[in-house]
Amino acid sequence: MSNKTKPGHFFEDFYLGQELIHATPRTVTEGDVALYTALFGSRFALNSSTPFAQTLGLAQAPIDSLLAFHIVFGKTVADISLNAVANLGYAAGRFGAPVYPGDTLSTRSTVIGLRQNRDGKTGVVYVRSIGVNQRHEPVVDYIRWVMVRKRNLDLPAPEVVVPELPEGVDTGQLTVPYRLTAPYDTDLAGSEHLWEDYAVGERIDHVDGITIEEAEHMLATRLYQNTAKVHFNQHVERDGRFGRRIIYGGHIISLARAISFNGLANALSIAAINGGRHTSPTFAGDTLYAWSEILDRQALPDTADFGALRIRTVALKDRAAHDFPYKDAAGAYDPAVVLDFDYTVLMPRQGH
Amino acid sequence: MSNKTKPGHFFEDFYLGQELIHATPRTVTEGDVALYTALFGSRFALNSSTPFAQTLGLAQAPIDSLLAFHIVFGKTVADISLNAVANLGYAAGRFGAPVYPGDTLSTRSTVIGLRQNRDGKTGVVYVRSIGVNQRHEPVVDYIRWVMVRKRNLDLPAPEVVVPELPEGVDTGQLTVPYRLTAPYDTDLAGSEHLWEDYAVGERIDHVDGITIEEAEHMLATRLYQNTAKVHFNQHVERDGRFGRRIIYGGHIISLARAISFNGLANALSIAAINGGRHTSPTFAGDTLYAWSEILDRQALPDTADFGALRIRTVALKDRAAHDFPYKDAAGAYDPAVVLDFDYTVLMPRQGH
Amino acid sequence: MSNKTKPGHFFEDFYLGQELIHATPRTVTEGDVALYTALFGSRFALNSSTPFAQTLGLAQAPIDSLLAFHIVFGKTVADISLNAVANLGYAAGRFGAPVYPGDTLSTRSTVIGLRQNRDGKTGVVYVRSIGVNQRHEPVVDYIRWVMVRKRNLDLPAPEVVVPELPEGVDTGQLTVPYRLTAPYDTDLAGSEHLWEDYAVGERIDHVDGITIEEAEHMLATRLYQNTAKVHFNQHVERDGRFGRRIIYGGHIISLARAISFNGLANALSIAAINGGRHTSPTFAGDTLYAWSEILDRQALPDTADFGALRIRTVALKDRAAHDFPYKDAAGAYDPAVVLDFDYTVLMPRQGH
Repeated sequence: MSNKTKPGHFFEDFYLGQELIHATPRTVTEGDVALYTALFGSRFALNSSTPFAQTLGLAQAPIDSLLAFHIVFGKTVADISLNAVANLGYAAGRFGAPVYPGDTLSTRSTVIGLRQNRDGKTGVVYVRSIGVNQRHEPVVDYIRWVMVRKRNLDLPAPEVVVPELPEGVDTGQLTVPYRLTAPYDTDLAGSEHLWEDYAVGERIDHVDGITIEEAEHMLATRLYQNTAKVHFNQHVERDGRFGRRIIYGGHIISLARAISFNGLANALSIAAINGGRHTSPTFAGDTLYAWSEILDRQALPDTADFGALRIRTVALKDRAAHDFPYKDAAGAYDPAVVLDFDYTVLMPRQGH
Repeated sequence: MSNKTKPGHFFEDFYLGQELIHATPRTVTEGDVALYTALFGSRFALNSSTPFAQTLGLAQAPIDSLLAFHIVFGKTVADISLNAVANLGYAAGRFGAPVYPGDTLSTRSTVIGLRQNRDGKTGVVYVRSIGVNQRHEPVVDYIRWVMVRKRNLDLPAPEVVVPELPEGVDTGQLTVPYRLTAPYDTDLAGSEHLWEDYAVGERIDHVDGITIEEAEHMLATRLYQNTAKVHFNQHVERDGRFGRRIIYGGHIISLARAISFNGLANALSIAAINGGRHTSPTFAGDTLYAWSEILDRQALPDTADFGALRIRTVALKDRAAHDFPYKDAAGAYDPAVVLDFDYTVLMPRQGH
Repeated sequence: MSNKTKPGHFFEDFYLGQELIHATPRTVTEGDVALYTALFGSRFALNSSTPFAQTLGLAQAPIDSLLAFHIVFGKTVADISLNAVANLGYAAGRFGAPVYPGDTLSTRSTVIGLRQNRDGKTGVVYVRSIGVNQRHEPVVDYIRWVMVRKRNLDLPAPEVVVPELPEGVDTGQLTVPYRLTAPYDTDLAGSEHLWEDYAVGERIDHVDGITIEEAEHMLATRLYQNTAKVHFNQHVERDGRFGRRIIYGGHIISLARAISFNGLANALSIAAINGGRHTSPTFAGDTLYAWSEILDRQALPDTADFGALRIRTVALKDRAAHDFPYKDAAGAYDPAVVLDFDYTVLMPRQGH
């Protein structure tokens, strides 16, 4: 038998401090941007228009924060989550240098935690992944933890190391790549509501619903060169847990962000991912809705032109968001909730 | 409750002379062109090949006239037709400067007519929309009229103003951006039939049929950042008038134009939209066919190398076009007809 | 009736030595590359990363060999196989100059063989097609033979001429466009296995399965401007031989190549197509798997840095590849086999 194929890592293959260099560097292009627009319909002016981006001090329109995230993330799958049972969460995500068409992204990861489960068949692996551009500047780094199958159940459990996860990313750690070179144009941006207009606790129903097709989520996930089997193989999945292909969780994040334009049009980009959970799987045919709550409004240390909003965006399937479904009294998610995403965006302030 | 989302304009929100600056300027890229090719399979050499475009005096291959139209149109939806019942028609459409990858398009509209319907629940809004590039050169401007819902039925009807719509666009108003820098290559263009070869009254069955999938029309419509709800939300539409998502009418125009290549391969670009009606909705699973009739053959004032053909292209669903289905004796459309599109193309003349 | 549409050539329209200039030159773009990635999920570093391609002496990331092939092939359909009953095989395919975004491809074909079938209703046409870039450098040339319908059954059969088809492409005929300018990075490429590590006779199960959707194969085939009717028209095909649209055979080749990454990650590009057969049709909903056998390991005359591997890749539908299904004792293909593809790849050698 050939030894040429890679089975992916099993739980016992990971060790604390392990460094993983992920394959397939990726030169991002305008083609990726067009596909991203076609898949999600995002309308944020910064990513759509080079002249608009130039009024914010950038050389050209950067790609959507989440497109960068998905490409960086996609590279990790073959090494980290090919044998994963579940993608459990994200924390401490920070976006660095804006990514432009022509930049080349690559990803490395470090194992920062391990905890075998009581059943002895699976364990949780904590990794810190960092995506860099061709100048080795970080574009996004984040922690995620996944539950991974063990192959050889006879091997002993590793020492338990669970990393301390920050409750959120401090504003001092945020990268603000913008500098106003012209008055910010709220007409072109699509909303007059700027940073000061949002109140902590305010909730926004983003109104629109988008139905997902099989071809769409597979095109997206392949675009990121993410090879997780559950998204692509109906021949196997028809006999699996759900009887069908599962949509990449990142697809839901991108749809929720695109839908959030109606209510958050001036949220220029995502600066941090404080935490995130895929609370329920989504499938082709599901219609996604989203609502957001303003968790915090944060001034930034080095600029008076932009502020940060910490936001929870909740995505729902087959359920409109006008009454903001979330958790019940016992803390259990409403069955319609598929994503609970806590992140920080940058937004222009008034008077500039 | 948050006031951050935009509900779109209702009939009573429009007033004569109202100027609307539409959001989200859009830098067009080669990625958009590739997606357009993948969605429609268009084979016109001018849009496909930069060396071919250079023989016509252009710096590079321009984007398809209709891709420019859809992007310009898409921006107007959030302000004009989010609460529309029906898109009633187009007139007086003129294409100006060719659009190249790298150009940034934005759109403004002016309300030029209003007429409340007798039921008091809806009204017709006439708008003139103009799309410009980053040098403020018009790339396409057109009139369309839509039926829009009224929200507050107690408000009085506005004064009736119905603009005079021209029967067609005069040849003197057409922009001809081409200049032959080499003999026109009919082999590469795919047909030997030039302007003189078409006879007024001639009808052409374009033969090919293309079936539309849900993923395709949604990818296309999002690519244009067109947010009309009826195209995307099966969760709502399953209880709607048709039980399913309705395909953006512009998708049908693009399919008909791509199918028309077989018979009109030398129709370089669309110079004018004289009129157009979506006579029936289309849905995923429908197979589109098209036929054309030459309505007029027009010489152009400032060039002997190119002429104009005024054409009616009729798109059909689930019905081949060999017998040219159109209207019955009473003037009612054949049920298979979904588009009646009257437009003017530019075509090279013989001997040049 | 109009004479403007092209019906495609029938068997009696072909003659020995006939030269066909195919329509619609095509400027390849980064948009095409992004779509190709989204459609197939290919992870070969050479096509994905410009810095990686530069370590191999190229100016930038070239497009996938098969994307070039499909574009070159697509142009021939309207002239050669619009009335084809079956695409019978490929031989003597050689890839020349790498294709970069910005290059413009066009195709010419020569009829090199004709053989009417005994039923008098069809015949086999052998053509040699050559795709060139804007500098007239060959990018791929190949022989294919197709069975084409005869329209006028009264016409006499042409003289039988069957070209001699080489059993394979000699290594002396292969173009090796690579030159190492830095050590080859197997981490980024995704595998440590280089040319010397593969043994003749070794078989590799590429493990992954990918399900195909209607929208995907139609987007792909239109991207190549391939107009073969059977791929697009459900209104006709529902009454056809299979009751549904047939997937373009080249789609299967591209999926098999993308799936082969897991096991052949260092197969930089395809240098030759020795032979290929689509042994059974594929349809939307089918899940594709692939396995490969190393047929030959060939040193190259002018370089010690790269070698050639002759490979058979077999694609299967709805059947995993772990037991390498192929032919039975009588030489009949296993019913799961849909593609038998014999090709030659270039791969870095050890110690460089």
